[in-house]
Amino acid sequence: MRLRHKPWAADFIKEHQDLVIPDPFEQKGKWQQLFPKEQPLGLEIGTGKGQFIAYMASHNPDMNFIGIEKAESIIVTAMQKVMDQGVSNALLVHENAEDLRDMFGKNEVDTIYLNFSDPWPKVRHEKRRLTYHKFLEQYQDILKEDGKLILKTDNRSFFEYSLVSFSQYGMTLEDVTLDLHASGDESNIMTEYEEKFSSKGQPIYRCIATF
Amino acid sequence: MRLRHKPWAADFIKEHQDLVIPDPFEQKGKWQQLFPKEQPLGLEIGTGKGQFIAYMASHNPDMNFIGIEKAESIIVTAMQKVMDQGVSNALLVHENAEDLRDMFGKNEVDTIYLNFSDPWPKVRHEKRRLTYHKFLEQYQDILKEDGKLILKTDNRSFFEYSLVSFSQYGMTLEDVTLDLHASGDESNIMTEYEEKFSSKGQPIYRCIATF
Ligand SMILES: C[S@@+](CC[C@H](N)C(=O)[O-])C[C@H]1O[C@@H](n2cnc3c(N)ncnc32)[C@H](O)[C@@H]1O
Ligand SMILES: C[S@@+](CC[C@H](N)C(=O)[O-])C[C@H]1O[C@@H](n2cnc3c(N)ncnc32)[C@H](O)[C@@H]1O
Repeated sequence: MRLRHKPWAADFIKEHQDLVIPDPFEQKGKWQQLFPKEQPLGLEIGTGKGQFIAYMASHNPDMNFIGIEKAESIIVTAMQKVMDQGVSNALLVHENAEDLRDMFGKNEVDTIYLNFSDPWPKVRHEKRRLTYHKFLEQYQDILKEDGKLILKTDNRSFFEYSLVSFSQYGMTLEDVTLDLHASGDESNIMTEYEEKFSSKGQPIYRCIATF
Repeated sequence: MRLRHKPWAADFIKEHQDLVIPDPFEQKGKWQQLFPKEQPLGLEIGTGKGQFIAYMASHNPDMNFIGIEKAESIIVTAMQKVMDQGVSNALLVHENAEDLRDMFGKNEVDTIYLNFSDPWPKVRHEKRRLTYHKFLEQYQDILKEDGKLILKTDNRSFFEYSLVSFSQYGMTLEDVTLDLHASGDESNIMTEYEEKFSSKGQPIYRCIATF
């Protein structure tokens, strides 16, 4: 994603501490207290410009959402999108997700969304892929027993890798879709990357898996 | 596959009992005795016109192969292909594969190949799909401990279904390829259907799974 420097971004984030939670590690185990209602929690890692979380929150008022995004100049767009939707069930975290167990308690999360995660195609960067087994360990810890991991991507190699990684970790595939838009899931909410790649005619892959 | 009636087919099959084994249920547990050498056994279900088994046998002299094909007018083409290759490590069976445990003993098979199996797209025909869990049970029984199931298909829904079916049965995905020809596996041997569909630009899906 192109990073345009936005000199006002740091201030904008600081001014909206109700939306971009300033001390996310302090919230471990008690995220629900920050939302108006206690309800199932969806966590998106690498939220990008926020279209997904903003629309998901607006379409699913019976869920709470947290989006983690490390890039300052990108998260500000996500902030604007969430504010535009006028929703109170979406919060953002401006952090580099490294060990999610520092930020979430055991079984605190119901669904994890990985949308168009950086594919890190080089073999020597395998450890950085968000579906590498070290990450799956974290997801397993913070997800509820029957919690779901939902992955969407346009990247064929990353998807192939992820299916094998899930399987070898012992996860169960609940659903695999090799052309999400052709199979016409009406409830699908598109991300920015999804719009870009599918408009170029590339198939979008999706997998739903459980531990 | 179009079935042209071939009045000579039944006789042709009968005349080549060294190639199309007439009493396959009698061979249960002792297939290796029918080959010149005892070596790992590959089993293809729904061999079609036989290009795959003929070339596999010729390229892999250190393996034995058995191909099962139910259609009389199709298996005769497979016979001709195997004879053209002049190989002694490929045998054919003219049967409708229903319960493979009637034909193969426990752990008798090293690799099972499902190539462009009939997809049976209607939900009410799920039980006929060769990756339905009842078939997986059979494969598990006749395969060696570390035996592999290798599936190739152009059919997206059948492939999606099969990945989920394998996973829910507790199988492990060793490899998933969503565009076999783009990923350039030099050792890949094409089937007739594979040539047809890939020449139309359709991606070929492949999965390698173990129990
Ligand atoms: C390829 S973009 C996809 C953005 C968005 N999910 C979409 O589908 O349009 C990946 C995003 O993940 C963010 N990201 C990658 N690794 C991250 C990490 N470890 N923690 C937080 N954000 C991360 C990047 O900054 C980038 O915005
Ligand atoms: C779609 S064709 C594919 C043929 C070949 N494998 C290829 O890739 O070119 C499926 C073949 O499987 C055969 N077949 C389907 N079910 C079978 C069964 N239960 N036992 C034996 N053959 C079967 C059909 O007669 C047909 O020739």
